[in-house]
Amino acid sequence: MFVSSSVTCFFAPKTGKPERSGSLGISFTIEKGVLVRLKDEGITFNGRDVELPTLEYVLKRFNYEGGVEILSDLPLGCGFGLSGAIALATSLELNDLLGLNMPLFKVADIAHEAEVLNGTGLGDVTTQCYGGFVVRFSTSKPSACKVDRFLWEVEVDFLVMGGIKTEDIVRGNVKEIYEIGRKCLKEFLRKPSLENLFRVSKDFSLKTGLADDRVIDAIEAVESCGGLASMIMLGRGVFAYGGEVLKELRGRYFKSKVSLCGIRKT
Amino acid sequence: MFVSSSVTCFFAPKTGKPERSGSLGISFTIEKGVLVRLKDEGITFNGRDVELPTLEYVLKRFNYEGGVEILSDLPLGCGFGLSGAIALATSLELNDLLGLNMPLFKVADIAHEAEVLNGTGLGDVTTQCYGGFVVRFSTSKPSACKVDRFLWEVEVDFLVMGGIKTEDIVRGNVKEIYEIGRKCLKEFLRKPSLENLFRVSKDFSLKTGLADDRVIDAIEAVESCGGLASMIMLGRGVFAYGGEVLKELRGRYFKSKVSLCGIRKT
Repeated sequence: MFVSSSVTCFFAPKTGKPERSGSLGISFTIEKGVLVRLKDEGITFNGRDVELPTLEYVLKRFNYEGGVEILSDLPLGCGFGLSGAIALATSLELNDLLGLNMPLFKVADIAHEAEVLNGTGLGDVTTQCYGGFVVRFSTSKPSACKVDRFLWEVEVDFLVMGGIKTEDIVRGNVKEIYEIGRKCLKEFLRKPSLENLFRVSKDFSLKTGLADDRVIDAIEAVESCGGLASMIMLGRGVFAYGGEVLKELRGRYFKSKVSLCGIRKT
Repeated sequence: MFVSSSVTCFFAPKTGKPERSGSLGISFTIEKGVLVRLKDEGITFNGRDVELPTLEYVLKRFNYEGGVEILSDLPLGCGFGLSGAIALATSLELNDLLGLNMPLFKVADIAHEAEVLNGTGLGDVTTQCYGGFVVRFSTSKPSACKVDRFLWEVEVDFLVMGGIKTEDIVRGNVKEIYEIGRKCLKEFLRKPSLENLFRVSKDFSLKTGLADDRVIDAIEAVESCGGLASMIMLGRGVFAYGGEVLKELRGRYFKSKVSLCGIRKT
């Protein structure tokens, strides 16, 4: 099962019981993501043993004692929503293996629960159930989340400079971030466009204080070349439209097209 | 813009104002569908001039005076939801061309309105916004329709024996079909599985009296070979799982995989 990476532009988090936890905001799915296969034992990410509490929660939830092989050309812990992608892909694989015949949103609710309880994500699984630029209008589990989508199938540039622990941020100043995120969503919806999305997202990264100097420098480098850029939420990194200049900065650069479909088999 | 065909297994129609019109039921998207491009003038389907009132409604709705080129390897009017696919694909193209930046469900609501007012479909556009086996829990426009999805990515056999005018059926014994369809949905949800979907769908085609002798013969031919089959709603045709025997019957046979994604660009 392949599930796309979900990159968050801005968000307004609410935490509590898993079914009432989530985030307002906008995230988009890209063609890169994770490929997950069940195997006899052990959890490996590109061949190396890893500890992933969110995934372990999923395995327990399904009473599955086997292992999981994860392949990805994206890094863990850098804001690409991989924990959600792995949780969703594994839940879907187990739904098939065990012949449970649960519909997508029921499966996604389990992956979301795993994310919330482990503090690894609030809106990624919902985004991955759809595809494109996904607007989340409510903070809730995927099955209850009202969404709409913009199908801007653009190519996006990325610069990864390191990780930020989602856990720390999400459990930290949630209320302040919520208020800023809510206003950003309102501001975006007043005039939805790709340009406005980047503008609002950059505002969010500055007003919340989440963007550090290196991130701000990278955003400004793109803007000075006529491109659009903002910070990956939550990673020390930047996503951009027309941001080839990011190649020249320190960090890992790559491109990926926005995918209109978050889930595919293969 | 490419939009998948939507094949309906069973349905419970409600008609009235477009935003309150729709159908409960289950439809699935396949890898075949329509490819739509805007052009200077005229409406062509595989190169031939055609009259498509649903599409013409869409063009008027967007105040667009140009033409549309449609390519498809599926036949019109045989239950493949092509009028909805064409209406949705064209609306999405016009949304892009005119720089309207409407989100998907707003665009889909227009395509749905075109379908309802022209009596060409009630649940196809909603299905095409998602992908896979789409369960529609409410009779309403796409933006307000509650759905869930089963991601059974199977290969389906089809036998097309002719067309049925959706218009006549939908405007005919709506109430009776609604009651039968509603019960079928309940029955399916009691134990969701691919096998049960075929069983319930076949019941629907028989109880509504929509299946004629040739359709019933084709279904029975598949079943006698150990496969599953039911009637395409609404076309004189059959869809099947493990239904290669359909090749030997009179009509047009083909296969297509279920697609998990109803919309893609290119």
